[in-house]
Amino acid sequence: MDFTVETATDAVVDSFRETKDQRLREVMESLTRHLHDFVRDVEPTMEEWEAAIGFLTAVGQTCDDTRQEFVLLSDVLGVSMLVETLNGAEEGTESTVLGPFHMTESPRRELGDSIDLLGTGRPCVVSGRVLTADGTPLPDTELDVWQCSEDGFYDVQQPDVQPPGNGRGLFRTDGEGRYWFRTVVPSHYPIPTDGPVGRLLEATGRHPYRPAHVHFIASAERHRPITTHAFVAGSPYVDSDAVFAVKRGLITDFTESYEKREAERFGVTVPFTHARFDIVLAPEAKSAR
Amino acid sequence: MDFTVETATDAVVDSFRETKDQRLREVMESLTRHLHDFVRDVEPTMEEWEAAIGFLTAVGQTCDDTRQEFVLLSDVLGVSMLVETLNGAEEGTESTVLGPFHMTESPRRELGDSIDLLGTGRPCVVSGRVLTADGTPLPDTELDVWQCSEDGFYDVQQPDVQPPGNGRGLFRTDGEGRYWFRTVVPSHYPIPTDGPVGRLLEATGRHPYRPAHVHFIASAERHRPITTHAFVAGSPYVDSDAVFAVKRGLITDFTESYEKREAERFGVTVPFTHARFDIVLAPEAKSAR
Repeated sequence: MDFTVETATDAVVDSFRETKDQRLREVMESLTRHLHDFVRDVEPTMEEWEAAIGFLTAVGQTCDDTRQEFVLLSDVLGVSMLVETLNGAEEGTESTVLGPFHMTESPRRELGDSIDLLGTGRPCVVSGRVLTADGTPLPDTELDVWQCSEDGFYDVQQPDVQPPGNGRGLFRTDGEGRYWFRTVVPSHYPIPTDGPVGRLLEATGRHPYRPAHVHFIASAERHRPITTHAFVAGSPYVDSDAVFAVKRGLITDFTESYEKREAERFGVTVPFTHARFDIVLAPEAKSAR
Repeated sequence: MDFTVETATDAVVDSFRETKDQRLREVMESLTRHLHDFVRDVEPTMEEWEAAIGFLTAVGQTCDDTRQEFVLLSDVLGVSMLVETLNGAEEGTESTVLGPFHMTESPRRELGDSIDLLGTGRPCVVSGRVLTADGTPLPDTELDVWQCSEDGFYDVQQPDVQPPGNGRGLFRTDGEGRYWFRTVVPSHYPIPTDGPVGRLLEATGRHPYRPAHVHFIASAERHRPITTHAFVAGSPYVDSDAVFAVKRGLITDFTESYEKREAERFGVTVPFTHARFDIVLAPEAKSAR
């Protein structure tokens, strides 16, 4: 039978019939159906198809060791956030996107260490506990933390200005599930706009900004790991994050503290900025797919 | 409102509301809806999402001056053929995919010239006429022709073996809409399998072969240009083209000819292989989008 607009999808779906991995077969069949529906919906001209091929090629070629433009594309289309939300636990702290800057391994640090290797900003302490839903502390939780500088850049974006590992740390909660580290208050920042994703935002009248945030991945034994952010309350763009990652429950007060005893415990002097961010982990799913 | 599995699509669609170019807005909205439907349908794990990002990145990074892996991906998913079919005229010769090997400009040649610069194969003549649907010849039609060698490789794939422009020619039909050129019978061949698209075919149990064919783009004034193939009748894989491009009306007999007078006219000696392939162009569409 000839390939027509009507028979196209069945023909391509059928071509995957010998796929041994049943999950791969399911994904390819679904991809074919939705992709063809999209094409039939918009009826691209040949020039538009060529432009799409050129765009995707440029996205791939913009990626390198420190830049992941396809993650960025997934982010600005809300796909990363949708996948993250589909995988998030129903209880506990809400998850949000990994983002394109979790590219290097965070250096192992001790509780109380500073992740700010520049030392130019006003000191900020982030502290909290990792808990189960019923409030049981989770000691020995691995906490991978990363954030941008006060100027709104990650270390990998400014190799000439920031030492590698600036703004990053791998911590382990203490016997009571507590963690604390020193840093600076991160800035809101634009996602990289000098590539094809930036040009897409420009062409569609979208701003490239993300509200200020600190990234966390928390992993504890027998619990579902979580990827999330603490968003800085009051940051610009908290209502229009370019990657759709804000959830109200993740907005965190970064407040001015004059508490001398706390300052001493954290190794800073008053006044300092203090953010408290607890993370609640859900138990491991009973069965993995 | 928080980003949820249910509100995700509206939030992303809404982000495109300021797009000045109405067509771009329409495409981005439709893309968002179909892409999100796909994600909700398959519910990818984070590892599967990462694998997809890695795959698309590798596809982009496999592209270079002589290789277009995203076109190849579009081809094996039937998208190229679907777009081509949506854009094809309802009357006249059927169109089919451009394919990934139309990357260099075909050298201008005179009618009767050979596009086979190797001179090792058995001579073949391809001839025909370009006509309107009512049989009126179309003189001065530009015919861009390209094909692989007897060994199944395009010039750009074998820079050490084939001179640039081997298997390619840009012809112009004569006063009666006729064209003819010398070549060799092309071979069936595998699409490139050493990249991510090849790995996808392997993982899904699909063969990478295309049946033997000669590519044509025909462009005449006041008519819709057409991109098509003459498929070699009886070629292996004519029923299972890896890129879904075969239409029965394009299957062409490449027959043994002992006609001395024709041989003389075409500048070959008997016996030679002769393929007759007429191309019927539809009139220009009244209004372009």
